[in-house]
Amino acid sequence: MDSKAVTLFEENNLVFLATIMKDGSPQVTPVWGEYENDYILINTAEGRIKHKNVLRDPRVSICVTSKNNPLDMTTIRGKVTEIIPDYQYEHITKLTKKYMNLDHYPFRQENEKRIVLKIKPDKVFILPDIPLKK
Amino acid sequence: MDSKAVTLFEENNLVFLATIMKDGSPQVTPVWGEYENDYILINTAEGRIKHKNVLRDPRVSICVTSKNNPLDMTTIRGKVTEIIPDYQYEHITKLTKKYMNLDHYPFRQENEKRIVLKIKPDKVFILPDIPLKK
Repeated sequence: MDSKAVTLFEENNLVFLATIMKDGSPQVTPVWGEYENDYILINTAEGRIKHKNVLRDPRVSICVTSKNNPLDMTTIRGKVTEIIPDYQYEHITKLTKKYMNLDHYPFRQENEKRIVLKIKPDKVFILPDIPLKK
Repeated sequence: MDSKAVTLFEENNLVFLATIMKDGSPQVTPVWGEYENDYILINTAEGRIKHKNVLRDPRVSICVTSKNNPLDMTTIRGKVTEIIPDYQYEHITKLTKKYMNLDHYPFRQENEKRIVLKIKPDKVFILPDIPLKK
């Protein structure tokens, strides 16, 4: 993946994940994620709308913009190729460190089962530099 | 619309807009927008993918999170009910003031025709307060 896109994932920028509802309309939510070994890994919980959506249609779109510069951004289209249980909270703990600099995930809910959406990027778009005009 | 969602639009937070591609897959991009008189107004340009997408399928999803607190967020589903020409750059100038505190839109491109997507929100979701745990 383009190094600019990789950097956007290395920083603790929120990731915006779009999925498809049952009726074919779009849904978009903010999530935590990272890029590792050619895949984007998004953490969510079983039973959430986005989980149901990707079980039915694995096609997703992802957008990340830099906190520091909104013109530094990537949009990615890809597919969920695997859903990995994170029942021991290992991956969400890693992301909690990245996003909140905390050692434990502070939003744990009873009976919540965390999962990881493993996403293969197909098309990666980087916003080209646009010259500023007066 | 919920006052919390309105506030998110009043602040200069980026808006993430999801639309549907021709093949039924999702697309998501960052845009500038505002909320006014019960509609969300998103500025884009003619011929962009999102423009083509909403001409074919007006259903969109929108996500806004606060710059200051990512837990302060709204996701909205709605429909583009009207596409308004902004050929005189009036609306984009207003948004340039909001987002960049500049008097003129600095990214003007030759032959670019700005337009406003007027979106009627159907479902507005606000993230409820989640108690922090240790």
